[in-house]
Amino acid sequence: MAFSLVFSNPSKSFSFPSCVHRHHVNIPRSAVLANTWLSPPSSRFFSIPSPSPLPKPWSRSGGALKCSLPSLPEYIPNHIPDPNYVRIFDTTLRDGEQSPGATMTSNEKLVVARHLSRLGVDIIEAGFPASSPDDLDAVRSIAIEVGNQPVGEDGHVPVICGLARCNKKDIDAAWEAVRHAKKPRVHTFIATSEIHLQHKLRKTREEVVNIAREMVAYARSLGCQDIEFSPEDAGRSDREFIYHVLEEVIKAGATTLNIPDTVGYTLPSEFGKLIADIKANTPGIENAIISTHCQNDLGLATANTLAGAYAGARQLEVTVNGIGERAGNASLEEVVVAMKCRQELLGGLYTGINTKHIFMASKMVAEHTGLHVQPHKAIVGANAFAHESGIHQDGMLKHKGTYEIISPEDIGLSRSNESGIVLGKLSGRHALRSRLLEFGYDISGKELDDVFKRFKEVAEKKKRISDEDLEALISDEIFQPPVIWSLSELQATCGTLGLSTATVKLVSSDGEEKIACSIGTGPVDAAYKAIDSIVQVHAVLKEYAMNAVTEGIDAIATTRVVISGDDSYTSMHALTGETMRRTFSGSGASMDVVVSSVRAYISALNKMLGFVSAMRASKENTEKQNISH
Amino acid sequence: MAFSLVFSNPSKSFSFPSCVHRHHVNIPRSAVLANTWLSPPSSRFFSIPSPSPLPKPWSRSGGALKCSLPSLPEYIPNHIPDPNYVRIFDTTLRDGEQSPGATMTSNEKLVVARHLSRLGVDIIEAGFPASSPDDLDAVRSIAIEVGNQPVGEDGHVPVICGLARCNKKDIDAAWEAVRHAKKPRVHTFIATSEIHLQHKLRKTREEVVNIAREMVAYARSLGCQDIEFSPEDAGRSDREFIYHVLEEVIKAGATTLNIPDTVGYTLPSEFGKLIADIKANTPGIENAIISTHCQNDLGLATANTLAGAYAGARQLEVTVNGIGERAGNASLEEVVVAMKCRQELLGGLYTGINTKHIFMASKMVAEHTGLHVQPHKAIVGANAFAHESGIHQDGMLKHKGTYEIISPEDIGLSRSNESGIVLGKLSGRHALRSRLLEFGYDISGKELDDVFKRFKEVAEKKKRISDEDLEALISDEIFQPPVIWSLSELQATCGTLGLSTATVKLVSSDGEEKIACSIGTGPVDAAYKAIDSIVQVHAVLKEYAMNAVTEGIDAIATTRVVISGDDSYTSMHALTGETMRRTFSGSGASMDVVVSSVRAYISALNKMLGFVSAMRASKENTEKQNISH
Repeated sequence: MAFSLVFSNPSKSFSFPSCVHRHHVNIPRSAVLANTWLSPPSSRFFSIPSPSPLPKPWSRSGGALKCSLPSLPEYIPNHIPDPNYVRIFDTTLRDGEQSPGATMTSNEKLVVARHLSRLGVDIIEAGFPASSPDDLDAVRSIAIEVGNQPVGEDGHVPVICGLARCNKKDIDAAWEAVRHAKKPRVHTFIATSEIHLQHKLRKTREEVVNIAREMVAYARSLGCQDIEFSPEDAGRSDREFIYHVLEEVIKAGATTLNIPDTVGYTLPSEFGKLIADIKANTPGIENAIISTHCQNDLGLATANTLAGAYAGARQLEVTVNGIGERAGNASLEEVVVAMKCRQELLGGLYTGINTKHIFMASKMVAEHTGLHVQPHKAIVGANAFAHESGIHQDGMLKHKGTYEIISPEDIGLSRSNESGIVLGKLSGRHALRSRLLEFGYDISGKELDDVFKRFKEVAEKKKRISDEDLEALISDEIFQPPVIWSLSELQATCGTLGLSTATVKLVSSDGEEKIACSIGTGPVDAAYKAIDSIVQVHAVLKEYAMNAVTEGIDAIATTRVVISGDDSYTSMHALTGETMRRTFSGSGASMDVVVSSVRAYISALNKMLGFVSAMRASKENTEKQNISH
Repeated sequence: MAFSLVFSNPSKSFSFPSCVHRHHVNIPRSAVLANTWLSPPSSRFFSIPSPSPLPKPWSRSGGALKCSLPSLPEYIPNHIPDPNYVRIFDTTLRDGEQSPGATMTSNEKLVVARHLSRLGVDIIEAGFPASSPDDLDAVRSIAIEVGNQPVGEDGHVPVICGLARCNKKDIDAAWEAVRHAKKPRVHTFIATSEIHLQHKLRKTREEVVNIAREMVAYARSLGCQDIEFSPEDAGRSDREFIYHVLEEVIKAGATTLNIPDTVGYTLPSEFGKLIADIKANTPGIENAIISTHCQNDLGLATANTLAGAYAGARQLEVTVNGIGERAGNASLEEVVVAMKCRQELLGGLYTGINTKHIFMASKMVAEHTGLHVQPHKAIVGANAFAHESGIHQDGMLKHKGTYEIISPEDIGLSRSNESGIVLGKLSGRHALRSRLLEFGYDISGKELDDVFKRFKEVAEKKKRISDEDLEALISDEIFQPPVIWSLSELQATCGTLGLSTATVKLVSSDGEEKIACSIGTGPVDAAYKAIDSIVQVHAVLKEYAMNAVTEGIDAIATTRVVISGDDSYTSMHALTGETMRRTFSGSGASMDVVVSSVRAYISALNKMLGFVSAMRASKENTEKQNISH
């Protein structure tokens, strides 16, 4: 099913392009060097500048104020005209997607990439193209569409980046994937810590330096002008050796130098010092941008990232919801909101992120990866803005500042009780469409028909349809892979007496109906077995989770499942090089828990089956190209 | 149902008490003052000490090495004999329990408090006794039992602390609740930031100082020797005013001064500086312990807490899993493990926490509060130690250090495929009991019978019973409130054709059987309505979530629900003073999703009904006492 997902602009002022000024601030290089932010922070880290009214470039979507806000600095790979501007590099689609169970289809990646562009992300790391032909295709689609499509009032086009290990095959694949973008970037990496040199690479330091230099030069020779280099496990690498590697790759043409804390081991002061040291001691560093990439194993990724920015990094690598392997990465929303709230203390640093799109980004990534956020997750958790709803609310709570440092509206979360519109069973298509537009979903035609049909079904049973109900329905309808099988009818019996039985009728994409029944340990088990007997594909259920979206026992239940297929669905891990079995998530919504569970399973199966077709198509494509050369 | 929850000691060496030496290190006060940790850190924050072999007192349960490890310093309220020892103050039962939906029964609080003691927590903040008679009772039970029961080899007895606002009624209630403990503490607080003074208290600074001084003196006059004082919203308070308030409360007898970052607003450098400034500028501060309390609104609570410790705080307030209002508090596991991993960089600071009990603490708190942790949560998330299980595992991964900085075993998480014992349907009671003992559950008698019966039911349907299956079953059996209603039989039919119907047979605690049927929008809705018609109590379903505990469609599903009753179930919020409606969580497990859902709902109803009885009993008790006076 094709679908469009367009976010409405709350200020409704798309028609005033003359308000937007794009300044190309050409500060002389010497002036930039003299700026205080270039000096190592050491004692300054503790000195708190007195509050002064700074311009707030972050609120560039701020409605009436918009015209007076500065525009973003021009994009030059190895130089940022405004010394206080910090680039946000989002790696949700690469590092985040490699978390267990987080596999996304090419189409889902494209949908997320579109939203990241809208969010104002400067660089989207779209994948690891050498991993599989499908990964290459996904990055290429993003480069072609998102990498060329201006969004927002200032016509922002993000850089599209592809990851590559330090070898020609990987770099070829990455360049092939990103070269269609207006601003393509290749990101290559090699480990530099002793522990990795000895146990993973089995190479000497000099061998590693040679490889890094040659591969950066190779990427440039292909025509790539924007090259990021990462010394993997920099947090545990010898300091002098890092300076040396970085010096050499800058000479070879690297424009961004990313410093990863691969094992999430460093403390903020330590990581800040690492960045400051690199800035102070690497010859030629003034010709490149320093970047951070912090894992969260000790819960310090956000703090480390901010310490890195304060110490001179001007690119921060983050993921939406902080997803990623193990304990994940620094989370985009925490880093961006902290910089927004504490801009003065951070020396005036700012990003180009439009925070109003954060909540939808969080929701979308949680939906597509199946990685939920805990209720007490900072910024985007369900409780992040909740004060226990009291029976008698103290008047003082009315003064928001007493306990709230940011407002839900800042991240695009509208409080549903303030919206004014309450939908019920008499509401028509127009009212539904208006409400959905307010959420940012601009749907029409068949999509709207499908959502409206589901809406009416729920409205028949529930008096008041909340925003959460609508969100669940629309997620179930539009965050779905192309339909290969769909649910027609289901019937199940179960209970403590055993002999749970389910009968399922599925319809294939070509209209064929198939019915099967099965017994099971419970109704879901029985229904899934019936589906398996129809679909006839090897699938193992890895995860299963269900949530009610609203209060009340007549709430809609959303189910999320993760399945894996056989060994033919694999990809390669970027860091370890090992082959991983892919897993596929699916989601479903219904007021009936069994129906909800079945919808989710079919969604995951469709995703897996769709993936096989895509893989086959990529393979045939590659073979054709090979023949034609 | 009564139950016992005893954790086995992995080293099985309870019989060697002669190994345990308890040194009362009496370092002269002048020597302590001269120690470097007392000087403000400023530039030292960035200097990284060269690695040196430090004693590792944190691994005090380290098996064979145990005898050679130093014991914990003696407890003196306002002084710690070892300048590097940092006290862990756990407020899961007070700040954590006030999060939306996290209400625990008195019995659950007692179970958690027992485990916190075993974990080695120095101070347990057990509740806010003035909030309700039930809260007072809960804290009193913990003070009487956990506050007097030595645990572990060194006979650790935690301090039991009760929270009180700065008024006599609150302090009376707190003292009444904690005074039975061997080491009782009263923690009183008042806001000191301008925004709170103006909008919440409507008092002048001098009025606030007077109240604080008088109330600390009042608590001492009751006989309490250990008093903690917090200037609420210290992070946004005027520096000079804080020094003044703290100076006055120290004179009045406060022994610990807690510095809360109430709105989670500060950056690590800023919070470290706040602590350093207080240490440097507050007259008499050498006669008190400085404490941190960091909220996580910007995702910086762990970093702020560590910065506070580095700057001189010797008590850290944390919660298990980082739960708490909004984005929660600094998480115990992150703070403790970071200090353990990076002890050298933190100047040799250490805590008394036995990290082997962290995983069970995390699980227990998630179970009882209903607040799950996200898969990528640092230390305790499901993915925290997971590397995507590859088909071809690279030999390099065998060298754990390449990507793992701590091992699952360090936090008490055994990898189930290493355990050696696989249970199946032929396994007997003895094999089951042995495996449960390995997890730390020492059950026998009726409890073992119940778990064994459930085990056999599952074993009939599943070939291999995993550790996760066992955990789900035991949680379902023992993490339960006293039984008022229990499920006898259930039958349900559902599907896309509508008319979902459920029939439920419940048995009351006095053996009466009741049957009811109902239709609903789905099988769970139908079953819950049938239960409501039997139990006849007002309950609103606030949250509903279900998870499969293992892979495969024949997995056990665990359900967690949160319900609220009518306005008669209330408590008072510690900070805002507003009345909150209590909510109650319940959990259930079964291979049938509908049965699992029904078990969870009955569990939550039992918890709510049990709470009413407890409240009535407290009230009658209080009335009786009033009459006898």
